[in-house]
Amino acid sequence: MTSTSSGERYRGELRYEGKAKRVYATADPHEYIVEFKDDATAFNGVKKAQIGGKGQINNAITAHLFPQLEAAGIPTHFIEQLSSTEQRVRAVTIIPVEVIVRNVAAGSFSKRLGIEEGTPLNHPVVEYCYKSDALGDPLINSDTALSLGWATEGQLLRIRELALKVRAFLVPYFEQRGVRLIDFKLEFGTTPDGAVILADEISPDTCRFWDSQTNEKLDKDRFRRDLGGVEDAYAEMLRRVTAPVDG
Amino acid sequence: MTSTSSGERYRGELRYEGKAKRVYATADPHEYIVEFKDDATAFNGVKKAQIGGKGQINNAITAHLFPQLEAAGIPTHFIEQLSSTEQRVRAVTIIPVEVIVRNVAAGSFSKRLGIEEGTPLNHPVVEYCYKSDALGDPLINSDTALSLGWATEGQLLRIRELALKVRAFLVPYFEQRGVRLIDFKLEFGTTPDGAVILADEISPDTCRFWDSQTNEKLDKDRFRRDLGGVEDAYAEMLRRVTAPVDG
Repeated sequence: MTSTSSGERYRGELRYEGKAKRVYATADPHEYIVEFKDDATAFNGVKKAQIGGKGQINNAITAHLFPQLEAAGIPTHFIEQLSSTEQRVRAVTIIPVEVIVRNVAAGSFSKRLGIEEGTPLNHPVVEYCYKSDALGDPLINSDTALSLGWATEGQLLRIRELALKVRAFLVPYFEQRGVRLIDFKLEFGTTPDGAVILADEISPDTCRFWDSQTNEKLDKDRFRRDLGGVEDAYAEMLRRVTAPVDG
Repeated sequence: MTSTSSGERYRGELRYEGKAKRVYATADPHEYIVEFKDDATAFNGVKKAQIGGKGQINNAITAHLFPQLEAAGIPTHFIEQLSSTEQRVRAVTIIPVEVIVRNVAAGSFSKRLGIEEGTPLNHPVVEYCYKSDALGDPLINSDTALSLGWATEGQLLRIRELALKVRAFLVPYFEQRGVRLIDFKLEFGTTPDGAVILADEISPDTCRFWDSQTNEKLDKDRFRRDLGGVEDAYAEMLRRVTAPVDG
């Protein structure tokens, strides 16, 4: 299996279909194939559309970033890119606790707390949400995750440690590419041996990216807020993420 | 000043009026007078009414419990009861972070997370809300409180420590009186020397109390949910809190 082969022939049973991705079993029980879709949803599925090229772009951005995170000491599920919309990953059990790391107030945080969008946070905020489409991914805290059996204390400590490590890598990475990383969402999974590793994706679907000079939004908020230029923003982010950086 | 004198003659300027209490300055800058009102509100002020005798009952319950908490090693603002609806307290600056301690799923927690009311939590849940009527006291976490300057790291650690100490005192206290303590809300303040002490009240307005035998609600949920018998439930809680316990 090389990185240029199409994954289709290797796909087994569909194991999970989310809003933006499908996950397939493979012949190897320790591996899955992830397929990135062009489908976009917002406001807990109320708003739906296709964003042309999104699946390819998010696959490419994630495939570009995850190996660098791995090299920076953050274990990830990524193995290799299989095709323009597919990647081979380690099979994990997703911990149903989404992690949001915030550097600057925006989105639901701004709305809920009456803090103007764009206000820098002088301490990184790590929020946890219960991964549940039916409930709209409600905000929780680590006590709640523990008390309802969604994660163990050790897993929660590791998740926070890894999330802050991802932040430490990504903030300067994007800064060098003219992008302010406002906030981002991560998901983690456990391997059969109990290790907690980074799963899911890092893309304009899961991050807020603002141009460093103009504060122009280069992420899914263009879709959520009907700002237009959605495809262009995703393509621009792919260009910036993968372009060589001077110095 | 004795505990039977009316506080009215000592009251200075009205410093704060909340949904259920008024706070007055006194001649001593280190002391306030708190007056408990019969006013009841729910759903962030959308529902309003008077509950006859509530001010007296909440004042009496709080005046009964706070000295016992103090004796159990929890510093409080309480000095003495002044009249049926008033108490003298230490002047503190309220930390704008409300603390909710949950032993059993109920109320907003159940609704938000789809957990049936009455489900015991096998780990106590400590939640923080930003004290803001305008925003409806939104759920936050300690990172958010830190990042927005609402509390320091030391204060948050102390608040959690004290909240769990209050829980350790109150759960068996109410159990001996035939009451399950489902959840409760606390507020803390800082003294001029920087100490964090328990303020506000502990009453059927701020706790969920369920009868141990019947699970009958003996708290403000009778008002919120139009269950009737509101005044009787408050009076019953005063009786149970203050009655001597066998053994």
